[in-house]
Amino acid sequence: MATLDDLLEDLVTANHVLAKLGIVDSFGHVSIRHPDRKDRFFLSCSRAPERVKRDDILEFNLECEPIDAKGKHLYTERPIHGAAYEARPDVMCVIHNHSPGVIPYGVTGHKLRPLMHMCATIGHEVPIWDQHRKFGDTDLLVRTMPQGRDLAKKLGKGGTYLMRGHGCVVVGPWMRRTVYTAIYLELNAKLQMQAEAMSRKVRFLTKGEVNKVTETTSPQNVNRAWENWCRMVERPFRE
Amino acid sequence: MATLDDLLEDLVTANHVLAKLGIVDSFGHVSIRHPDRKDRFFLSCSRAPERVKRDDILEFNLECEPIDAKGKHLYTERPIHGAAYEARPDVMCVIHNHSPGVIPYGVTGHKLRPLMHMCATIGHEVPIWDQHRKFGDTDLLVRTMPQGRDLAKKLGKGGTYLMRGHGCVVVGPWMRRTVYTAIYLELNAKLQMQAEAMSRKVRFLTKGEVNKVTETTSPQNVNRAWENWCRMVERPFRE
Amino acid sequence: MATLDDLLEDLVTANHVLAKLGIVDSFGHVSIRHPDRKDRFFLSCSRAPERVKRDDILEFNLECEPIDAKGKHLYTERPIHGAAYEARPDVMCVIHNHSPGVIPYGVTGHKLRPLMHMCATIGHEVPIWDQHRKFGDTDLLVRTMPQGRDLAKKLGKGGTYLMRGHGCVVVGPWMRRTVYTAIYLELNAKLQMQAEAMSRKVRFLTKGEVNKVTETTSPQNVNRAWENWCRMVERPFRE
Amino acid sequence: MATLDDLLEDLVTANHVLAKLGIVDSFGHVSIRHPDRKDRFFLSCSRAPERVKRDDILEFNLECEPIDAKGKHLYTERPIHGAAYEARPDVMCVIHNHSPGVIPYGVTGHKLRPLMHMCATIGHEVPIWDQHRKFGDTDLLVRTMPQGRDLAKKLGKGGTYLMRGHGCVVVGPWMRRTVYTAIYLELNAKLQMQAEAMSRKVRFLTKGEVNKVTETTSPQNVNRAWENWCRMVERPFRE
Repeated sequence: MATLDDLLEDLVTANHVLAKLGIVDSFGHVSIRHPDRKDRFFLSCSRAPERVKRDDILEFNLECEPIDAKGKHLYTERPIHGAAYEARPDVMCVIHNHSPGVIPYGVTGHKLRPLMHMCATIGHEVPIWDQHRKFGDTDLLVRTMPQGRDLAKKLGKGGTYLMRGHGCVVVGPWMRRTVYTAIYLELNAKLQMQAEAMSRKVRFLTKGEVNKVTETTSPQNVNRAWENWCRMVERPFRE
Repeated sequence: MATLDDLLEDLVTANHVLAKLGIVDSFGHVSIRHPDRKDRFFLSCSRAPERVKRDDILEFNLECEPIDAKGKHLYTERPIHGAAYEARPDVMCVIHNHSPGVIPYGVTGHKLRPLMHMCATIGHEVPIWDQHRKFGDTDLLVRTMPQGRDLAKKLGKGGTYLMRGHGCVVVGPWMRRTVYTAIYLELNAKLQMQAEAMSRKVRFLTKGEVNKVTETTSPQNVNRAWENWCRMVERPFRE
Repeated sequence: MATLDDLLEDLVTANHVLAKLGIVDSFGHVSIRHPDRKDRFFLSCSRAPERVKRDDILEFNLECEPIDAKGKHLYTERPIHGAAYEARPDVMCVIHNHSPGVIPYGVTGHKLRPLMHMCATIGHEVPIWDQHRKFGDTDLLVRTMPQGRDLAKKLGKGGTYLMRGHGCVVVGPWMRRTVYTAIYLELNAKLQMQAEAMSRKVRFLTKGEVNKVTETTSPQNVNRAWENWCRMVERPFRE
Repeated sequence: MATLDDLLEDLVTANHVLAKLGIVDSFGHVSIRHPDRKDRFFLSCSRAPERVKRDDILEFNLECEPIDAKGKHLYTERPIHGAAYEARPDVMCVIHNHSPGVIPYGVTGHKLRPLMHMCATIGHEVPIWDQHRKFGDTDLLVRTMPQGRDLAKKLGKGGTYLMRGHGCVVVGPWMRRTVYTAIYLELNAKLQMQAEAMSRKVRFLTKGEVNKVTETTSPQNVNRAWENWCRMVERPFRE
C-alpha cells in the first residue's frame, strides 16, 4: 500500500514526466488529493514542472489556501484544482496544461474525440469552456474560486475539458492514469488533425469501445508506461 | 552463423531501436521465431520496449503459452504474434506497434502505399483490419487466438497491415529487415500525408519498382542501418 | 538590483536559450540597450547564438559602430538593433530571428494574430515588412541604417513584426520578457496554422484579452520560465 | 590554406553534421573532389554518415572505381558522384540524401522554389529527375554510369535537383556551402508546404534576390554555421 510519502514522490515524478513528454512547458501543474483528508490537496509552489522537487510540494485546503506556504510563491491558478476536487469527490488528481495539440480545438470549437484505443480514457467527447462567456475580457487565468467553480461545472462526470485560448484540464481517479490520459489526449489531438485532413469520414471509437477500454485500463497496464517514464526522467520506480 | 544467443541479443537491440526511433512508445512489442523450432517464438515479458533486457525475453508456443513465465507479467496481445507465425511459415519476426503516422490511415480507410524506394518493403498496398467487424465493441486489444487468427488472415502474403483505431503489424523473413520495414512504414505514412496535401496526383512506386527494391534489400544494405542503430542505442553490433 | 554585469550574463543566457528552443539556428541575434547609456547597446560579435560567450559581447553606439571591436567579425545586420533603439526609447531588448513558424506568414501576407494567452504579448496583430518594396532586389539582409530605419517605422508602437522571406523582429521593455515573446510568437504561428486548417472560424484573443494578459505578464511570471530555461542550458539563475 | 588532410577531416565532419541535422539518416552520402586531381574524388566506404571515421574515406576515379578499396564494402550509388564531377568541372562537393521534406515534391512534380533568404542557394527552381522515364522499373538506385550521367544532365548549371521517389542531389563550389545548401533545401521544402497550405499566393524570392544572396553567401557567413555545427557534433573547428 502506498504511503503519503510514496504519493508525494510520485507527484514529483509526474511533474518531470509531463515536462519530458512535452505536455507542459514552463507552465502547467499537477496536483493530488490528500489520500486521508478529502478536503486537502497537494500542489507544487510556483515552479516549472521540470524543476519541481519534493520540498516544493505544499498542502492546500479546497479554498486553495496553503496550510503552510513556507514563504514560497504560489501558482495563480490554484482554483482549477480546488474547484475540481470540491465538485467531484471521485477525483484524486488534477492536471492543467497547455499541450500544443489541444489549443486548435479550443479556439475553433471543433470537437476532439477519441480515435485510438490508447486515447479512450479522454472520454467520448471533450467539452470546451470559454472563460469569456461569463467573465468577459480577462487575462484568461483562472484566478478566483467562482471562475474555478464555473469551469468545474463543464467537467460534468467526464475526465477532460478544453479551455478556449488557454489549454485543458484532465482529472482522474488515480494519479498515474491521469498522467497517462493527459499524454494520450495530446496524441489524439495531433492524430485527429491529420486524419481529418486526410478524409472527412473518420471512424472514431464507438461508445462501447470507449467504455471497454476505460474499464480495462488497469494499474498494471499503466505501470508499463509509468516504469518507462520513471527511467526517462531518472526517478525511482515503485510498483 | 548467428547462434540463438546472438539472435536474442539482437531482439533486445530491436526493442531499443524501435523505441529510440519513435516506432513504439511505452507500448508495442517485437518477437522472433525460434530458429530451430518452428513452433516456438521469443518475446519479452510485459515491459516497455526501451526497458527490455535479455532476462525479460521468454519463450512461447504458437498458442502463446509461456514455456516458463519466470513469474513475470505477460503482454496481453501475444496472439498477434502466435497467430502470425502459425499462418505464415515464412515469417521469422513480428512487430506490433502504434507508430503515430499509421493511425490516420487506419481510421479513415485511406490507402497507404509506398512512394519512396526505402519504403518499398511495406508492400504494394497496406490492408486494414477492423476488429469491430467481427468482434463488435471490444477494448481493441487482440486478446484471444480467434482474434489473432482473424487478423492473420488479413495479412495474406504481405508484410504489413493496419489495425483500425489501434496500430499496425509488420512481419518479415528476418528480424533486421522487419525492423527496417517498420521504421520506413512510419516514414512513408508521414510523407504520403504531405504529398497528398500538396497534390492529388501522387506518383507512387510501380509494382515493378516495389518488387525490384524488395529483391535488392539485402542483409548488407540493412546492416548499414543496423550498425548505425546499434550505436545509437549503445548496443554491440554483430555483422 | 541587477548590475550591468548581471545583465550581460543574462544576455549570454538569452542567446543559449533561444538556440535551445529552436528560435534561432546558427543565425539570428539578441541585443540589450545599455542600462545607463541610452545611446549604446550590447550585442555579440558574429557567432552562432548557441556558442556566444561573455567575452563575445561588444558595445555599440546607435549608428551600430563598435566602441571596441576587439578584432572580431561583426554581425552584418546590426542596423536592425540600432534603428529599433533609436526609434523607440522604451525598447530595452531587440531579438532578430528566423524561427520557422513565422516564415509562411511573411511570404503570404496572411495575418498572424494571438490565439492563446501565453502568446498575447506578440500584440493584436503582427505587421509585415517587405524590404523589396523600397529597396528592390537585395540579398534581404538589413545592411544599412536607412534600411534599419525603414523597418523600425513598421514597428510602430508594437512589439513584433515579420520580415517577408527573411524572419522577424521582437522588441520589448525588458530582456526576459522579450525572449518569452519570441518563444511564444513561434508557438502561436504553428498553432494558428493548425487551427486555420481545422476551421475558418478561429476565435482569436479579443483586444481586451490581449491588453489584460500583457498587463499581468510580470517578472515573477516570466521568471518561472526563465529559471527553467537557465537550467536547460546549464546557466546560473538570478532572480 | 587548407591541406588535403584538413579537407578530409572536414568531410568526416560533414557526414556527422548532415546526420545530426536530419538531412541523412542511415543512408545518403557526401563526397569532395580531390583538390589537386580533377579526376579523383573522396567518399566514405559503405557506412551510415553518422558513423563515418577518417579511415573510412576512400579515393575514387570519375568512373567510380576505388583506387584502393582496403577490402571495404562500397556505396552502390557512387555514379551519382562520379557523373556529377565529370559533367561539371566547377563542382567540388556532391551530397546525395533523402531528407524527408523533399520527397513530396519529387513524387508530385510540384515545383520547389526558394522563399527565404537562407534558402536562396538552392537556385531559382529545383528540377526533378525520374529514373523510370529512361530506365523503366528499377530499384531506383543509381547503380551505373549511364544512369549517373542521365541525371547529371538534369543538373544543368544548377546546384540542386530532386529524384522522384528517392531523394535529392546537391552540388556546390566548396564543401561547407554545399552542406549549408542541403540543410536549407530541407527547410525550404518544409516551409513551402506550410506557406502553400496557408495561401495560394506565396511570394517566392525574385530572381534578382536569389542571385544577390548567392553572391553574398561568403565563407565567413557559412563559417558562422560551420563552427556551430562542428561543436554540435564535437568535431574540431578550423576557420
